[in-house]
Amino acid sequence: MAKRVAVVGAGVSGLASIKCCLDEGLEPTCFERSDYLGGLWRFTEHVEEGRASLYKSVVSNSCKEMSCYSDFPFPEDYPNYVPNSLLLNYLTMYADRFNLRKCIQFKTQVCSVTKRPDFTVSGQWEVVTLCEGKQESAVFDAVMVCTGFLTIPNLPLDFFPGINTFKGQYFHSREYKHPDIFKDKRVLVVGMGNSGTDIAVEASHLAEKVFLSTTGGAWVISRVFDSGYPWDMVFMTRFQNMFRNSLPTPILSWLIEKKMNSWFNHENYGLAPEDRIQLREPVINDELPGRIITGKVFVKPKVKEVKENSVIFNNTPKEEPIDIIVFATGYTFAFPFLDESVVKVEDGQASLFKYIFPAHLPKPTLAVIGLIKPLGSMIPTGEMQARWAVRVLKGMNTLPPSSVMIKEVNERRENKHSGFGFCYCKALQSDYVSYMDELLSYMNAKPNLFSMLLTDPRLALAIFFGPCSPYQFRLTGPGKWEGARNAILTQWDRTFKVTKTRILQESSSAFAKCLKLFSFLVLLMAVFLIFL
Amino acid sequence: MAKRVAVVGAGVSGLASIKCCLDEGLEPTCFERSDYLGGLWRFTEHVEEGRASLYKSVVSNSCKEMSCYSDFPFPEDYPNYVPNSLLLNYLTMYADRFNLRKCIQFKTQVCSVTKRPDFTVSGQWEVVTLCEGKQESAVFDAVMVCTGFLTIPNLPLDFFPGINTFKGQYFHSREYKHPDIFKDKRVLVVGMGNSGTDIAVEASHLAEKVFLSTTGGAWVISRVFDSGYPWDMVFMTRFQNMFRNSLPTPILSWLIEKKMNSWFNHENYGLAPEDRIQLREPVINDELPGRIITGKVFVKPKVKEVKENSVIFNNTPKEEPIDIIVFATGYTFAFPFLDESVVKVEDGQASLFKYIFPAHLPKPTLAVIGLIKPLGSMIPTGEMQARWAVRVLKGMNTLPPSSVMIKEVNERRENKHSGFGFCYCKALQSDYVSYMDELLSYMNAKPNLFSMLLTDPRLALAIFFGPCSPYQFRLTGPGKWEGARNAILTQWDRTFKVTKTRILQESSSAFAKCLKLFSFLVLLMAVFLIFL
Repeated sequence: MAKRVAVVGAGVSGLASIKCCLDEGLEPTCFERSDYLGGLWRFTEHVEEGRASLYKSVVSNSCKEMSCYSDFPFPEDYPNYVPNSLLLNYLTMYADRFNLRKCIQFKTQVCSVTKRPDFTVSGQWEVVTLCEGKQESAVFDAVMVCTGFLTIPNLPLDFFPGINTFKGQYFHSREYKHPDIFKDKRVLVVGMGNSGTDIAVEASHLAEKVFLSTTGGAWVISRVFDSGYPWDMVFMTRFQNMFRNSLPTPILSWLIEKKMNSWFNHENYGLAPEDRIQLREPVINDELPGRIITGKVFVKPKVKEVKENSVIFNNTPKEEPIDIIVFATGYTFAFPFLDESVVKVEDGQASLFKYIFPAHLPKPTLAVIGLIKPLGSMIPTGEMQARWAVRVLKGMNTLPPSSVMIKEVNERRENKHSGFGFCYCKALQSDYVSYMDELLSYMNAKPNLFSMLLTDPRLALAIFFGPCSPYQFRLTGPGKWEGARNAILTQWDRTFKVTKTRILQESSSAFAKCLKLFSFLVLLMAVFLIFL
Repeated sequence: MAKRVAVVGAGVSGLASIKCCLDEGLEPTCFERSDYLGGLWRFTEHVEEGRASLYKSVVSNSCKEMSCYSDFPFPEDYPNYVPNSLLLNYLTMYADRFNLRKCIQFKTQVCSVTKRPDFTVSGQWEVVTLCEGKQESAVFDAVMVCTGFLTIPNLPLDFFPGINTFKGQYFHSREYKHPDIFKDKRVLVVGMGNSGTDIAVEASHLAEKVFLSTTGGAWVISRVFDSGYPWDMVFMTRFQNMFRNSLPTPILSWLIEKKMNSWFNHENYGLAPEDRIQLREPVINDELPGRIITGKVFVKPKVKEVKENSVIFNNTPKEEPIDIIVFATGYTFAFPFLDESVVKVEDGQASLFKYIFPAHLPKPTLAVIGLIKPLGSMIPTGEMQARWAVRVLKGMNTLPPSSVMIKEVNERRENKHSGFGFCYCKALQSDYVSYMDELLSYMNAKPNLFSMLLTDPRLALAIFFGPCSPYQFRLTGPGKWEGARNAILTQWDRTFKVTKTRILQESSSAFAKCLKLFSFLVLLMAVFLIFL
């Protein structure tokens, strides 16, 4: 009899988990709290308890060729960076294409997931759900937790002395939906993650004045990277990854600093990161420096004190009048339906082997999917986690002994660093390419570049020097997708197709043409001389 | 008795003209049609007949250090690129500082400027004005026309077959004020000048879909240039200008193409200019590529046909539904109060010697100020024109014989090109640095770099390699400003001061520190070895 798997949440990782279960012949039942799929990617005008919340203008930070499910490219006419409404469409298409909806029970909240009395033998779980007031209980052979890490707002008001006396409006970025509220106001956005930066930039089109307060600073990357290529298609290559990981961290940090400052000098714009060694997640924003240089956004250090109608920043004596404060101070996560003995969360870090499996469990029948922030896209990361996890749940792959897993978790907590490559904050961050390769090798699905160089050199070069797009994860092994090779070789065509909407017949300059002609003549002469 | 000068218009060039008249002891009377100074830079919610019209969000395309009056820097706390409201403040400050208001008659329209019967002897003009219904006439020794070139919209509807059947809304960009009208609409912006691009980008935040149609394409430059420096402070240096003007045009075009494509490949974004040799005014926009790559703006070729509710573009069969068309098709200019025998306008080109003096006039007592579009700021250009013009009007400088002036005008009309440097469309365009130097040398106010290299090498280097900021025009000769040298040497400080609003104590990375230490040790050793 097929194993029954409970999937908690029908977002990006939940959908992938359902599909992976179906692919492996398991029997998934997905419990989704809301009445629709897509998780955080479904924009709603009102914030919903226990669900991530988007603002209207959110656009994906990872381009479509890098952030699709590995066997399901985005439609060709989608823009390179997909706005939230289109991303939701894509998720819907994915669900329809692989017939995932039939496995989802909407409007069903998971109340508790507890070990069955015979857990040490059966590995089974009792899942109690609540659907329209009716509580139900069912037994599952395995559970996949796909609730994400963006639901519980982190609002550290204690660090803002005087906030209680503030007479203006303040709220967490999670509450933010439309920029209209900022019209002609003096706005302070606290926190320079992607949300904070987006909100400050958006507010600056309407507000009287916008301050962006950041303690740590950050590197800001534009989606429009070198020569206009999507940033992640340039940055996320196996070649670059190998190069980066072979460099001592201080040299790499120095190189990265030079690279990041080539767009604009972060120090001159008040944005330079305080800690240049530990890589903070870079901020993806196309407009911030333009808003700073036109005086629409002012970058400020940490808030020192909040007064009735104003704010004082560190190291600046001047009081700045403020009407609205937005706390873009991020999120924490928790598993309210799970006992602490299953997954323990300490200092924003869960005791999960490879960010997936509870290290202490005697039976590997529970997996957490999508609880990771790689410097890459969430969609393929969650999918790859699900692919491997399902194989473990099914018993086709095994985990190392508990002691080894506990050791890995503890080492991550200590965050010891090898001295080479990026130094991540390992609570949730991981090196994208290395992590993916690790999961692939567990599944025996990692492409062998050396042998490919002999059998299919074009593909091998595209894989090594080109963007590490998700199709690479479907070239070989279990779950192989026939379309993968072609998808890799045509990824740049799809990228340009959507922006090259006005084509010139004659494109190169007279001088460039002369250069070409000259090179051709030299070549001809060389050939002639060789055969002489 | 001081000569009486009529100044037509109290905009950027009008204010400079009044001040230059006062500086030279002339008696200016400025007639301003509206009831305020600042010309196009005063934003109004409604379009006014005969006056340029701004949209709410306009920000200067030239940075504050490059676009101030040469003896009146912008306030230190102004952003590098100044929004229209602050620019107007600045103009008001200028008028107040030099007491120009007393010379302005507001709400006074100039109806006609005609030669007095004894013009060939006296050079005098009769100026008829209309103020609150009352017509008046007065005699002036000279006239300075400062009405600009952005008042008469160019709306070439004949080139848009079917536009009469279009059931949506269409208007000239001049009518555009706020983006709200675009909410959830399908918008087409025709024309890719600065306005068209700004409007398309702004619409894209609210509209359902935005198309930007351009026949010729354009190079797009961000205000945030190399390493985040203001584009014009990097681009407009004497060194670069000399370098550019010494290169054959095809090589220069090729170099410029490479440079322009380093931000983003214009061909991949559908923006590449059709004519790569003749330099079209580049478009200054910080956001366009980001809007294209996120699918918010679609670049399209020329419009082939307009239908009731849609538009067909050249080379693309698909009909695109459109609700609003904005014609950002530019402006033409005219002098309705002047007889054609004084200034003749043909093909968008006026018969003006050095863009200022009517070539056919027997007496040089009329000057047109600010009828030029340098690839630089209008404010110092108009000011420098006015400085020289006033000296000519006063008789301190003389013009060449009429035949020489007519020859210059005709040559410009033919637009013959030397084969070196940029190839401008010479109707209104000119090489900024060369043009300024020409005007300065007429006034004997051009700084001598060679002698300066001996007397003040620091300044000489700053002038040659640094931004060609307007203070350079006040270093020597008549109109010398004592603050000029200091303003030049501190221009970068002022530039960074406004964006460096969060300062880190320790700024360089460990590796950079090591590098510095290492270099120091090597230097020490070298010194040691030399003295050994």
